[in-house]
Amino acid sequence: MTLEQRLEKLEARLQAAEDQLEIIRLLSTYGPAVDSGASRAAAELWTQDGAYDVGGMNRFAGHDALEQLYEAEMHQSLIRQGSAHITSTPQITLEGDRAEAVAYSMVVLAGEDGHTVWRASANHWELRRTPEGWRIVTRTNRVLNGSEESHALLKRAVK
Amino acid sequence: MTLEQRLEKLEARLQAAEDQLEIIRLLSTYGPAVDSGASRAAAELWTQDGAYDVGGMNRFAGHDALEQLYEAEMHQSLIRQGSAHITSTPQITLEGDRAEAVAYSMVVLAGEDGHTVWRASANHWELRRTPEGWRIVTRTNRVLNGSEESHALLKRAVK
Amino acid sequence: MTLEQRLEKLEARLQAAEDQLEIIRLLSTYGPAVDSGASRAAAELWTQDGAYDVGGMNRFAGHDALEQLYEAEMHQSLIRQGSAHITSTPQITLEGDRAEAVAYSMVVLAGEDGHTVWRASANHWELRRTPEGWRIVTRTNRVLNGSEESHALLKRAVK
Repeated sequence: MTLEQRLEKLEARLQAAEDQLEIIRLLSTYGPAVDSGASRAAAELWTQDGAYDVGGMNRFAGHDALEQLYEAEMHQSLIRQGSAHITSTPQITLEGDRAEAVAYSMVVLAGEDGHTVWRASANHWELRRTPEGWRIVTRTNRVLNGSEESHALLKRAVK
Repeated sequence: MTLEQRLEKLEARLQAAEDQLEIIRLLSTYGPAVDSGASRAAAELWTQDGAYDVGGMNRFAGHDALEQLYEAEMHQSLIRQGSAHITSTPQITLEGDRAEAVAYSMVVLAGEDGHTVWRASANHWELRRTPEGWRIVTRTNRVLNGSEESHALLKRAVK
Repeated sequence: MTLEQRLEKLEARLQAAEDQLEIIRLLSTYGPAVDSGASRAAAELWTQDGAYDVGGMNRFAGHDALEQLYEAEMHQSLIRQGSAHITSTPQITLEGDRAEAVAYSMVVLAGEDGHTVWRASANHWELRRTPEGWRIVTRTNRVLNGSEESHALLKRAVK
C-alpha cells in the first residue's frame, strides 16, 4: 500500500470509531435532558420526523409531539419526584450513514426509603448521520415483562 | 519522525481504540442475547474452551455447557418473567492480543409492582483476540454481599 | 491537503477519541476502587487538589480528605454489606486539556432479599489532562429527589 492508501484506510477506520463514540454520547444525553426538563433538547435528539414508539403508550413522531410527551403532566411528575432515565451501554452496529443500537433502559424513581426501579425495558434505535451529527430515526421501547415483543427487540443485537 | 513512522504510530493507537470499542460491544451483546433466549449466540461470546465461573453456582466451560446454562429451566424462568442482565461500562486494560475487564452486573427482574434488582455482582473478564474478533476466555462473577472474593475481583481494576 | 496535513488532522481526531475512552475508563475505575476498599487509589482519580462535593454531606478536597471519606466507618459499612457504586455511561464534552462529564450514579446495596437501589444521583465532573493522564478536578453529586440543584447538574449535559 502507498502512504496515501494507508491514510485513506486509517481515515475510514477512525470515522467508524468516532461514529460509535458519538452515538454513545447521543444516547447518554437523553436521560439528563428528560430528567431535567430540557424537553425540546430531548426531542431534538431525534431527526425532524423521528419517532418514539413507547411500550404500553403510543407512538410519538416529530419534535413537537416528542416535546409534548416530556412536557405532559405524567412525565413532569416523575421529574418532581426525582427520576433517572438510565440507558445501559448500547450495542452499536454501523452501516455507513445508518446505524442501529440495542440497550436496556431503566427508570429509577425516588421513594420514601431510597430509590426503586419503576420500569426496565428493551430498546432498539435506528440512527442516521445528518449534517448536525447522528440523530435518532426511531426508538422502540418495550417493558421487560416476558413478552414476545420485548424479546424480539433484544434479539436484534444478535446477528 | 518520517511520515511513515507517524502513520505506523497512528495505526497502533487506532487499533487500541478499536479494541476497546469492540470489547465494550462484546460485553454489551451479552445481556440482549441471554435475556432473549439466544443461548447459542451468548455461548459464542466465549472462546471455544472459554469458561464462566458463576458465584454460588458452578463453572461452565465450552460452548455446549454455556448454552445449556442459558437453556436450563432456572434461566428460562427469568426470561419468561422479564429479565435484564445489565453490564455496567467495563474498565478495560489491553495487553496486545489479551485484555481484561472489570464491571458490575445486575439482574433486574419484573415484579408485581415495577422491577427489582435481584442480584448485583462483581465481574472480571479475561479476553483474547481471535480471528473472529475479541472473545471471553474466562468470566468470574461473585455476588456483592461483602465477601472477600467479591472485593478481590473488583480490586483487579486497581493496579 | 498534503499528506502531512492529513496526518496532522488524523492525529488530532484520534487524540479526541482516545481522550473520551480514557475518561470513560477513569470513571469506570471509581466504583471498583471504592467498593473494594482501595481508598487511596480512589482518591488518586482526582488531581492533588481535586474535590468531591457530595450532596447531603460535605465537600472533600485533596487526596487525604478523599481517602478518609472512603476509610470512614460510614463507607466501610457499605463495603461489608456489599455495595456497587455504579456510574452510568458518561456524556463527555472535550475542550483541549479540559473536559466535563455528566452521568447518573447509583449505590446498589445487598439486602435480605436481593439488592436495593439505596441512592440514585445526578453527577457533574470537571476533568483535566495531567502528565499522568486525565484526572477529576471536581465532582458534584446531588441525590435525585426533585431538587433544583439535581436538575441543574443534569442540565449541564444540554448546551
